[in-house]
Amino acid sequence: MLSRQELIDQIKQKKSFLCVGLDTDLDKIPDFLHDFEDPIFEFNKRIIDATADLCVAYKPNAAFYETYGVKGLQSLIKTYEYLPKNCLSIIDAKRGDIGNTSDRYARAFFDKKASGMGFDAITVTPYMGHDSITPYLAYEGKWIIVLALTSSVGSHDFQYLQTNEGLLHEAVINKVNTLAGAERIMFVVGATKGQEFENIRKHAPNNFLLVPGVGAQGGSLEDVCRYGITSECGLLVNSSRSIIYASNGKNFAEAARAEALKLQTQMATELEKAGIL
Amino acid sequence: MLSRQELIDQIKQKKSFLCVGLDTDLDKIPDFLHDFEDPIFEFNKRIIDATADLCVAYKPNAAFYETYGVKGLQSLIKTYEYLPKNCLSIIDAKRGDIGNTSDRYARAFFDKKASGMGFDAITVTPYMGHDSITPYLAYEGKWIIVLALTSSVGSHDFQYLQTNEGLLHEAVINKVNTLAGAERIMFVVGATKGQEFENIRKHAPNNFLLVPGVGAQGGSLEDVCRYGITSECGLLVNSSRSIIYASNGKNFAEAARAEALKLQTQMATELEKAGIL
Repeated sequence: MLSRQELIDQIKQKKSFLCVGLDTDLDKIPDFLHDFEDPIFEFNKRIIDATADLCVAYKPNAAFYETYGVKGLQSLIKTYEYLPKNCLSIIDAKRGDIGNTSDRYARAFFDKKASGMGFDAITVTPYMGHDSITPYLAYEGKWIIVLALTSSVGSHDFQYLQTNEGLLHEAVINKVNTLAGAERIMFVVGATKGQEFENIRKHAPNNFLLVPGVGAQGGSLEDVCRYGITSECGLLVNSSRSIIYASNGKNFAEAARAEALKLQTQMATELEKAGIL
Repeated sequence: MLSRQELIDQIKQKKSFLCVGLDTDLDKIPDFLHDFEDPIFEFNKRIIDATADLCVAYKPNAAFYETYGVKGLQSLIKTYEYLPKNCLSIIDAKRGDIGNTSDRYARAFFDKKASGMGFDAITVTPYMGHDSITPYLAYEGKWIIVLALTSSVGSHDFQYLQTNEGLLHEAVINKVNTLAGAERIMFVVGATKGQEFENIRKHAPNNFLLVPGVGAQGGSLEDVCRYGITSECGLLVNSSRSIIYASNGKNFAEAARAEALKLQTQMATELEKAGIL
């Protein structure tokens, strides 16, 4: 489990604020892995081994494991166990429900004794309000990463609605920040909108932001940093497909490392520009 | 799989629009069930046997199964397989993500070959917009049940925000109803607010509404029907705790049946009042 200060220390040490998204898909992994008993885990293991010194977080996307039923869940649990302890482990689950049910999701992903998994952080969707968030806060030191502004086309349907408390995603950030401090709460903010980060920072000056959309979805790392970086970095930039599927040959892990290294090198530059290194 | 017309036929035949929520909790089920290999499934099996002629839908709440890791998922799969084919099977999963991830959740809960589960319907959270909903529509005949107005205290945080397209939950209903018709889309509308149904019906005149909050959460069935029933019923009223935990003794299934029967009897009266029977 990484505290805020430990996360910042890792970022400085590794000169990286990269999160590697493990959206592992049986149809996309190299053929030779299908000869193993657990191809998903074998893929993840090799990706983790190849990238662990270049990133500060890993984010398995729950949907990709749930697709495969019991086998998928077993792969997810093994992946969780394999994640390096000096990286933040994020389960991208996007759950959101009433209090007594959110409490169950918290156990499912935070309480290793109950479920076999004890992730450091979970992504949560805010539609149902504060009782879909507070149950997770009962787990000391764990992080809750709340959807604010996402990177897909559907984000325009509701997240930009003008409300009597600002744009909907602003209202979400403001409300959620009354529930706990920046040592427990992060927000998901999509990278397809570099300049948006300037506005987001007005509402979330200190929170870490988990940023999808760099790479496969077209966002620019430089723009994200120009408008979103803070004196403590405050960013975790996620890349999934562009790293893990850089090649589907025998060399996939080396290719993933090369892609991660490109991003880490850019990140080192950005951290220097921001005076953090 | 039940079509809209088949669901309406079941409602008329059983004189019931009851959905039994399977929020099965190892800490709340009778002690003697713990001697079985799969206590959760044994509990669900007995509840289903005791209530199947009184209800038209069952709704396992995914969180309660995920809490127990692989064992919980195995119990959920067995429960799915045991559900009677003349009842709508709803997985209460409240997922919501971008398109390529929602597609995976759809497989996880709709595609039996992939995951072991082929539910008729799934609950979905709308924050991320249309691409968190459309992937489920690709599964012909399956239902998508979108959160609109929920029954917990947190519903007041965002769902009632006044936006430039009406209250947020109204904007959600209006947008989602442009994606598919009332034979594919239902909405979750909490029962703690009987009179609210009058307004909801202005935006969702034909959709079935899945209504939690009757019973343990204090909602009134009579109020829900007064303002929410349509000429084709248009309601599925869910009760979880007040039925399944009516007793925690050896007689729990009989006690659950007695509670379900009370609700079914009231529902028959409401269906008659509305001229549906």
